[in-house]
Amino acid sequence: VKPWFDRRMTRIAAVQLSPVVGDLTGNVARATAAIEAALAGGAEVVVLPELTTSGYVFESEAEARGLAIDAEDPLLARWAALLGDAVLVVGFAELGRDGLLYNSAAVLDASGTRALYRKVHLWDLEKRVFTPGSGQPAVVETPFGRIGLMICFDLEFPEWTRIAALAGTDLLVVPANWPVQPGSEGAPEVQIAAATARLNHMAIVVADRQGTERGVAWAGGTHVVGADGGLIDAVGRGDGVAWADVDLPASRDKRQATLVDLIADRRPDLYAPLLG
Amino acid sequence: VKPWFDRRMTRIAAVQLSPVVGDLTGNVARATAAIEAALAGGAEVVVLPELTTSGYVFESEAEARGLAIDAEDPLLARWAALLGDAVLVVGFAELGRDGLLYNSAAVLDASGTRALYRKVHLWDLEKRVFTPGSGQPAVVETPFGRIGLMICFDLEFPEWTRIAALAGTDLLVVPANWPVQPGSEGAPEVQIAAATARLNHMAIVVADRQGTERGVAWAGGTHVVGADGGLIDAVGRGDGVAWADVDLPASRDKRQATLVDLIADRRPDLYAPLLG
Repeated sequence: VKPWFDRRMTRIAAVQLSPVVGDLTGNVARATAAIEAALAGGAEVVVLPELTTSGYVFESEAEARGLAIDAEDPLLARWAALLGDAVLVVGFAELGRDGLLYNSAAVLDASGTRALYRKVHLWDLEKRVFTPGSGQPAVVETPFGRIGLMICFDLEFPEWTRIAALAGTDLLVVPANWPVQPGSEGAPEVQIAAATARLNHMAIVVADRQGTERGVAWAGGTHVVGADGGLIDAVGRGDGVAWADVDLPASRDKRQATLVDLIADRRPDLYAPLLG
Repeated sequence: VKPWFDRRMTRIAAVQLSPVVGDLTGNVARATAAIEAALAGGAEVVVLPELTTSGYVFESEAEARGLAIDAEDPLLARWAALLGDAVLVVGFAELGRDGLLYNSAAVLDASGTRALYRKVHLWDLEKRVFTPGSGQPAVVETPFGRIGLMICFDLEFPEWTRIAALAGTDLLVVPANWPVQPGSEGAPEVQIAAATARLNHMAIVVADRQGTERGVAWAGGTHVVGADGGLIDAVGRGDGVAWADVDLPASRDKRQATLVDLIADRRPDLYAPLLG
C-alpha cells in the first residue's frame, strides 16, 4: 500500500447507456461519444455496460452472431487510442476464433487490450446464444491500482467475487445489463454489490444499461460503492454517468478491528471439502 | 418441497436482549422469561443472541471461564422442556470437556439438544478468550424445515453461508452480538444478511443484543429477511422481538428465471483451485 502522502484518488466514470439491439454502428458511435465525454470530465477509469455494441435481446443466435466482433477488432484499438493515461472497460458480443459466441468485456489502455474476460455465469436465455467462459476473473495492474473484471450475473456468485478479491482486486468493475425484477423498484442487485464490497473490502463499480428493448425493461442500476460498502454515486433513471473518486490501493487494508482481517480470518481448510 | 396446499408458514421470534456481563443467574432468568413470552405468542422457532447467558465484554479469560457452562448443563434441558413443538436456538459461553472455551450455540427441541455449534470465525478480542470451532455449520431437520446455525461474524464469510445453503439450510439462524460500527447508524450487517439471503435464496434470522456493556455499544440489529432478501421485521432500539411468518421449504426453489438456478449455475470446477 502506498504511504498516505503518496496516495491519490482515481476518478471513475460509470456510463449508463441505452444500446439499441442490432444497431452496431449507432451503438459504437454513442459509446464513443460517451467515452470522449467521460475523458473530458477527467475520468481515469471509464466503464461501459455489458453488450454495449450489440444490445441484448437477440431474436436468435444468428442475430447475435451478426452483431458479434472479434476480440482483435480495430474498434478496440480505436477506443484505446482515445485513452491517454486512462483505462476503459467495455462489454461486447465476441465472436471467438473458435467460432463460438461469448459475452465478453475487455480492459483497454493506450497500449491496447490489457485483458479479455468471457462471462462465466450466463443469465437465463443467454445460455441459448453464448458459450460460458472458463477463465478466471481478469485482474489487471494499472497505475491506479488493480482492476478486476467480471460481468453482470457473475457478481451474484460469492465464490467468484471472493476469488477476484483474493487475486488482489482493488476495484471490481462490472459491466451489467440488469433487467427490472418483478415486484422491485430500481436494481436490487445494488444491495449485493454493497455487501460484496464490504465483505471483501473492495470497491465496486457497475455500469448498467437502461431503457426498454423488445419488451424487456432495464433497471438502470449504474453505481459505485466504496470498499466499506457505502454508495458513492448512482445514475438512476435515464442515460448518465456515476462519478466517484476512489483510493484504489486503500482496498488492500483488510483489517476491520485490532485482530480482524477479512481475508486472513478465512478458514480455507474448512471450506475446501464443503464447497463442491 | 411440499406441494403448495401442504405448505404452512412457520412463526419465527427473534429476541433482542441486553445481557449483563457476569450476571449468569439474571441473564438466564431474563432469557427464560423471553422464551416463555415468545412461545406464548405462538413462536415455533425462537432465537436468542450470541452469549446470552454470559454477556460479552469479559475482563479476562478467567472471567469468561467462570461464566461458561457445559454443553450438557441442565439449563439446556430446562429450556428444552418449555418448548412443546417449538425449536429454540440460543448462544452461550461453553466450557468444553477438553477444558477449552468456545463461543457456542445450540439448537434445542423438546427432545433436548439437537445440535451444538462452535463459532468458527472469531471476532477481534474473542480470539484471546475462545478457541475457534472447526465443525461445519449445523443443519438440523425440523418439522418446519431445515434450520442452519452459525454465529455472528461467521455470517460475513460468504464461503460459510454458501456452505450452509449447499447443506440444505432453509432458514439460517444467526445469534449475534454486533457492536456499533464507527460512523454507522444501526447495524450495517443487515445489508450483508439481506444480500446473503438473496444470493442463496435462503431466509435468515439474526437475534442481536442491545445496550452498552463496559463501554461497548451494541447495535440492536435483530431482524428477519426472507429468501428474496426482503426485510420482514426488525426490532430497532431497545429489547424486543422481531416476528416473521416464513415458509421455510420455499427456500428450496433456487430458480430465478426460466434457465436460472442460483445453485445449479455455480461453477465449482472453476472455484476449487482458486479459493485457497
